[in-house]
Amino acid sequence: MSASSRILNLAVIPGDGIGQEVVAEGLKVLSAVLPQDVKLETKEYDFGARRYHATGETLTDADLDALKRHDAILLGAIGDPSVPSGVLERGFLLKLRFAFDHHVNLRPSKLLPGVATPLAGEPQIDFVVVREGTEGPYTGNGGTIRQGTEHEVATEVSVNTAYGVERVVRDAFARAQARPRKKLTLVHKNNVLTFAGHLWTNVFHRVAAEYPEVTTEYIHVDAATIYLVTQPERFDVIVTDNLFGDIITDLAAAVSGGIGVAASGNINPGGAFPSMFEPVHGSAPDIAGQGKADPTATVLSVALLLRHLGYEAEATRIEDAVSADLAERAGQPARSTAQIGDALAVRVAG
Amino acid sequence: MSASSRILNLAVIPGDGIGQEVVAEGLKVLSAVLPQDVKLETKEYDFGARRYHATGETLTDADLDALKRHDAILLGAIGDPSVPSGVLERGFLLKLRFAFDHHVNLRPSKLLPGVATPLAGEPQIDFVVVREGTEGPYTGNGGTIRQGTEHEVATEVSVNTAYGVERVVRDAFARAQARPRKKLTLVHKNNVLTFAGHLWTNVFHRVAAEYPEVTTEYIHVDAATIYLVTQPERFDVIVTDNLFGDIITDLAAAVSGGIGVAASGNINPGGAFPSMFEPVHGSAPDIAGQGKADPTATVLSVALLLRHLGYEAEATRIEDAVSADLAERAGQPARSTAQIGDALAVRVAG
Ligand SMILES: CC(C)[C@H](C(=O)O)[C@@H](O)C(=O)O
Ligand SMILES: CC(C)[C@H](C(=O)O)[C@@H](O)C(=O)O
Repeated sequence: MSASSRILNLAVIPGDGIGQEVVAEGLKVLSAVLPQDVKLETKEYDFGARRYHATGETLTDADLDALKRHDAILLGAIGDPSVPSGVLERGFLLKLRFAFDHHVNLRPSKLLPGVATPLAGEPQIDFVVVREGTEGPYTGNGGTIRQGTEHEVATEVSVNTAYGVERVVRDAFARAQARPRKKLTLVHKNNVLTFAGHLWTNVFHRVAAEYPEVTTEYIHVDAATIYLVTQPERFDVIVTDNLFGDIITDLAAAVSGGIGVAASGNINPGGAFPSMFEPVHGSAPDIAGQGKADPTATVLSVALLLRHLGYEAEATRIEDAVSADLAERAGQPARSTAQIGDALAVRVAG
Repeated sequence: MSASSRILNLAVIPGDGIGQEVVAEGLKVLSAVLPQDVKLETKEYDFGARRYHATGETLTDADLDALKRHDAILLGAIGDPSVPSGVLERGFLLKLRFAFDHHVNLRPSKLLPGVATPLAGEPQIDFVVVREGTEGPYTGNGGTIRQGTEHEVATEVSVNTAYGVERVVRDAFARAQARPRKKLTLVHKNNVLTFAGHLWTNVFHRVAAEYPEVTTEYIHVDAATIYLVTQPERFDVIVTDNLFGDIITDLAAAVSGGIGVAASGNINPGGAFPSMFEPVHGSAPDIAGQGKADPTATVLSVALLLRHLGYEAEATRIEDAVSADLAERAGQPARSTAQIGDALAVRVAG
């Protein structure tokens, strides 16, 4: 649904732990930034640990049908220690990414003025990772035999298709072309994972020929972690596989201000299914319900959501408000989740 | 071969790029530190880009037979841009690790006084990663169909066996038990790679029961990269899969002084095959032949080699010499590869 239709019909999934709190602030800022003539319709969905314990369900076909009818999805966080590892991840988060073909997992990293970084000096960080979201080792292919015995063999199969790799590589080239520095780095491990590595590398070079203005480079994933802490300024756009993207975007978030400010979009560029936007952080059960969670990552995810739906000016207003807010935070006493949300809502409306 | 036999029969593989230079210094320090009554016998082997271009060979059965007769192997670096990515990695480095069953890939990280780190503040870093070396996504299992077409499918299969996981987990518990802090962290991604993840997690818990004094924790690999830059002091011993180990040890090297000082051992603990010791860095063709390479990582790899062969006092002497040398480096003009080697040789002999 484009901006011109003037209804924004949003599925809201607060989820577990701090999810509830941060999503409330995300919606507060969203309401404040939307033009008067855009009607925001939200429907809240109950997913995560509570529902799993109550019903055994994580994400049903009926749920998917319902979610499909929205323009986009805003998610807080899913996950709780009371649920065995993997159940909600595979049964909800990944199931949704796969069902809605969220093949572009977009994760910008920008170190904003005034924001603390664990890195020494004054690193310049402003890049975006385009992580493939529907293939690689995340497909759930694999299995186990003789489980629990000394003869167990467990496999995980990374599946990579030319179709899947090419579409995400194309998306990344288009994003690089649109940025001032026009640089794209492919991160993989093509010297060891030679089958998948050759596919990624070949597709990358083929598409590169169509983007002569984009400077390209290839870096192994292990070396990429070094550069992320020693020369993060070398990155502009990074395109990478699902698992490598998972790893380097957490590191990227850590060096560019922490997961308290890291936003992400699980995007279906063609729009066949609604895209989902969520903070990179998890449900943080240890601080849940205390008003301590920083809603900034969720608010920035709302900006990505707006940009995806065509509300470019509103997205930029949110990002500017966050920059200004973060710049003022240094040295101030910690504010509550709601206080930060209020401050941002005032700024975007102003 | 144990220390009591008083012959140290070493295979030396200088390899490509800076490999030649750093290995020469490693041997210099080794000769200087060995007790008078230990006879050092070295045999140099020609592997890497030169031989590959001349003969097409990377590592033959005859080579393996010859290498097998040594007590240990010291390697400089293998790899050159003139050789297609993967050829020397799979055809030499990984082939050797697999042929000699180097299942314990040992990578200590210690931030020594005076050494620069990209991290702010004064991080305390002193941990060792026990990386599995013969399984996971490194097995070369997988393949490709319809290569080069738009219908290509390329797979990589991570193979994990109870046998392979248990032996490396046991090795890691024993190392943790022997250290003052007695803490072991399992790093995996068991919420997504559930087949392999359950195997690793179950084996880890089973072996943990035999080590009641060792504190254990589990961390996802993505979160581990965050902790490596925000709270590296939380780690004592880490045990992890081959690929995750590859990634986090480069990051660990970066935060603890750079790959110029990162050593590693590819160890066959039972001694059925010789173990191989090598700096974590690569062949760095851009600075090869200029006497600019820092031989410290190779010298520290020699220390690991000596400890593995039972020369504990000599290993410690090297490590102390390196600490002292690094502490004096700050603010001094850069020294050449040979100057650093000379200084270390003097120190260990003194
Ligand atoms: C929770 C988990 C399934 C997820 C992932 O691995 O993709 C998370 O780490 C992320 O990065 O969104
Ligand atoms: C060169 C490559 C095969 C190797 C690996 O991936 O193990 C290297 O990165 C390492 O860490 O020793």
